Amino acid sequence: MKKVKIALLGLGTVGGGTYRILTSQHDKIAKDYGIDLEVACVLEKDLSKAEALGVDLSIVSTDINNVLANDEIGIVAEFFGGIEPARTFLLKCLKAGKSIVTANKELFSKHWEEFEAARAESGAGLYFEASCVGGVPIIRALHESLQGNDVCRIMGIINGTTNYILTKMSDEGASYEEALSEAQRLGYAEFNPSADVDGYDAMYKLSILSTLAYHRKVPIDVISREGISTITREDIAYAKELGYAIKLLAVSTCNGDKIEAAVHPTFIPLNHPLASVRGSFNAVFLVGNNVGELMFYGRGAGDLPTGSAIVSDIVTAARSTVHTRYPQLTDNSSVEFAKDCIDKFYVRLTVDNKCGVLSKIASAFAKHGVSITTVLQKDGDDKVPLIFVTEQTGERSVRGALADIEKMSEVNKIENIIHVAG
Amino acid sequence: MKKVKIALLGLGTVGGGTYRILTSQHDKIAKDYGIDLEVACVLEKDLSKAEALGVDLSIVSTDINNVLANDEIGIVAEFFGGIEPARTFLLKCLKAGKSIVTANKELFSKHWEEFEAARAESGAGLYFEASCVGGVPIIRALHESLQGNDVCRIMGIINGTTNYILTKMSDEGASYEEALSEAQRLGYAEFNPSADVDGYDAMYKLSILSTLAYHRKVPIDVISREGISTITREDIAYAKELGYAIKLLAVSTCNGDKIEAAVHPTFIPLNHPLASVRGSFNAVFLVGNNVGELMFYGRGAGDLPTGSAIVSDIVTAARSTVHTRYPQLTDNSSVEFAKDCIDKFYVRLTVDNKCGVLSKIASAFAKHGVSITTVLQKDGDDKVPLIFVTEQTGERSVRGALADIEKMSEVNKIENIIHVAG
Repeated sequence: MKKVKIALLGLGTVGGGTYRILTSQHDKIAKDYGIDLEVACVLEKDLSKAEALGVDLSIVSTDINNVLANDEIGIVAEFFGGIEPARTFLLKCLKAGKSIVTANKELFSKHWEEFEAARAESGAGLYFEASCVGGVPIIRALHESLQGNDVCRIMGIINGTTNYILTKMSDEGASYEEALSEAQRLGYAEFNPSADVDGYDAMYKLSILSTLAYHRKVPIDVISREGISTITREDIAYAKELGYAIKLLAVSTCNGDKIEAAVHPTFIPLNHPLASVRGSFNAVFLVGNNVGELMFYGRGAGDLPTGSAIVSDIVTAARSTVHTRYPQLTDNSSVEFAKDCIDKFYVRLTVDNKCGVLSKIASAFAKHGVSITTVLQKDGDDKVPLIFVTEQTGERSVRGALADIEKMSEVNKIENIIHVAG
Repeated sequence: MKKVKIALLGLGTVGGGTYRILTSQHDKIAKDYGIDLEVACVLEKDLSKAEALGVDLSIVSTDINNVLANDEIGIVAEFFGGIEPARTFLLKCLKAGKSIVTANKELFSKHWEEFEAARAESGAGLYFEASCVGGVPIIRALHESLQGNDVCRIMGIINGTTNYILTKMSDEGASYEEALSEAQRLGYAEFNPSADVDGYDAMYKLSILSTLAYHRKVPIDVISREGISTITREDIAYAKELGYAIKLLAVSTCNGDKIEAAVHPTFIPLNHPLASVRGSFNAVFLVGNNVGELMFYGRGAGDLPTGSAIVSDIVTAARSTVHTRYPQLTDNSSVEFAKDCIDKFYVRLTVDNKCGVLSKIASAFAKHGVSITTVLQKDGDDKVPLIFVTEQTGERSVRGALADIEKMSEVNKIENIIHVAG
């Protein structure tokens, strides 16, 4: 049987989950896949974590040189997160001919080309299934199951924290602040929740998924980004009334050489498969020109779900004689990234309850070429909510119209503008 | 660039779709995957099909020896369906060292071991992504993405014809016969629809999926099977009233050495991800001990979706230096296949509208150890519908109780018994 030695960099949530799976599934992996996996080195400062997992303390270290100097270690799995020291350590490992396995979406979205170049030199493997959507095998599907397709669209609910918050707001009528507190209490959200609620985490993942899907590098700096902190109870209620759920959507499209990529809250029609993705679950919906619509659904985070993806990459790396390459990363010459976003939009205003206001606002939209499909006007006293849903239009036109509308004396506030899918 | 020659056996729906994708995506596959794929031989009696697709008629033949004798052909994709001549042809190809790619679920569920043995001798590859759930990459996910899991449950809507019929019955109040006629008119159902509506097609696929998931051969003869032809408008309406959708479900569970596998109509709670799989779409929901719940959704049939899976297998076969093995197929010594099915059940009766009937029937259930969670009694004249939903119980106990209930003079008819999930 082929014996393969592994190093784990970090024993946090996912590192710990990975160690537990490698231990509990060791014999089955040996029997069914012919690979005897051994954790030969662990980098971790906090010895109590190692002890809690039952790791032999003699293999625990804080020095990457213990990994680099050990020629028997063929695979290095990284769980530090963030850019440094992960980047430096992993590049050294690749250059030393060790395959790397990582869940580090930020690192990978920012430095993939550098890793591919280092990998190409040494012939080692580069595996990152766990970087996007936890245990859901979307990376492998995009790279190894859709070769006969031009993927033209990705729509993903790829951040569990924000989906948990939005689901709680929708189910229980909680405010954003209440739902966020609960998510923090349960450990779904960090004390500083910005990476999740402001859309950074989803942006990193969308960069990786879109690059794989379209065979062109989609860097994070072309992805427009809005978070969920402006979503209110009122928006959730009007969404329901109009037949939608609100989700933080990572969405990109590729039409020939034109690519558009964005992360933003979105109204999704209730009959769309993504609308029923609830709580901390994730899903990626995509469209290929031949396969049609596909959706992959599962847990996007957590020690064992993400550990499952890491172990899958470790087993794949251990069995591979030739590792996967991503040559398409470097050819971006002809790509044009969209500057304006074409979508439908929900616009919620608070206006004076006066005759003629609706017509005045409607004519401002018309002046900017924005057609309206739905108007929802609510009863009230002197201030009333007024909701519009537009036809497909450029975001710039909507913003232009709203700049005019904001100046009207009858308009008290532009409460929110949210993308509408479908 | 690596040049790989392919033979296509048959130019029916999926064969034609495959040819079209191989043609339209040829240059992209060459550029991004480094493989120059050439269709070098086509086996097809009907020259008009070849002409319609623009196939060079000089490569069209009816003699498998033209494939076998051509050493340059490395990959053979089969689209005949059924057992013979596909089985004989493909075994000859494997023995000649040619990798095979097939969508043939019946052949594969019945003769997989024979193919694996032939493959092991020659070292060629065995690819069958297209055999289950069309373009959805579930085969690769089960084999190459869940190595760190014990899969314990599969629930699949894996027959598009029956899902189309049941969706139409549910949405439009159509009868089974009306929905079937419409499915036949649209080409979703065959003139003789038995393979679909009686659950054979789903049974073949469930055998393949369960074998991959549990790493033990789950032969078709251990799979209990019920079709959808007994489902009526009334059952659909009561399901809705109780908060369920009715789907033809292929379901299997693995608990240690105990495996249970069945195809049958099932009440699925409306908040389950499978409940929103509509029309001719398919989905496979599964549970792994580490990854948790996963679902894969997409088109389970059709020329281009299934062709997409075939082309994915062709590209994978063309790039592989060592092909995937399935050694776990042969070790079934310790497996125990369930004889009784543990589930909840919906039971619909027509009974006399008389005092004491409910109590008499309830006591018959109690006598057989069957607990009831829900009773739905409808107003009516002298004959009324009476609906029960049971707790988890053995199917044998329910059938035993119903044998007693059927003998009661107040019971006019046992209208239906349907499994209830969740």
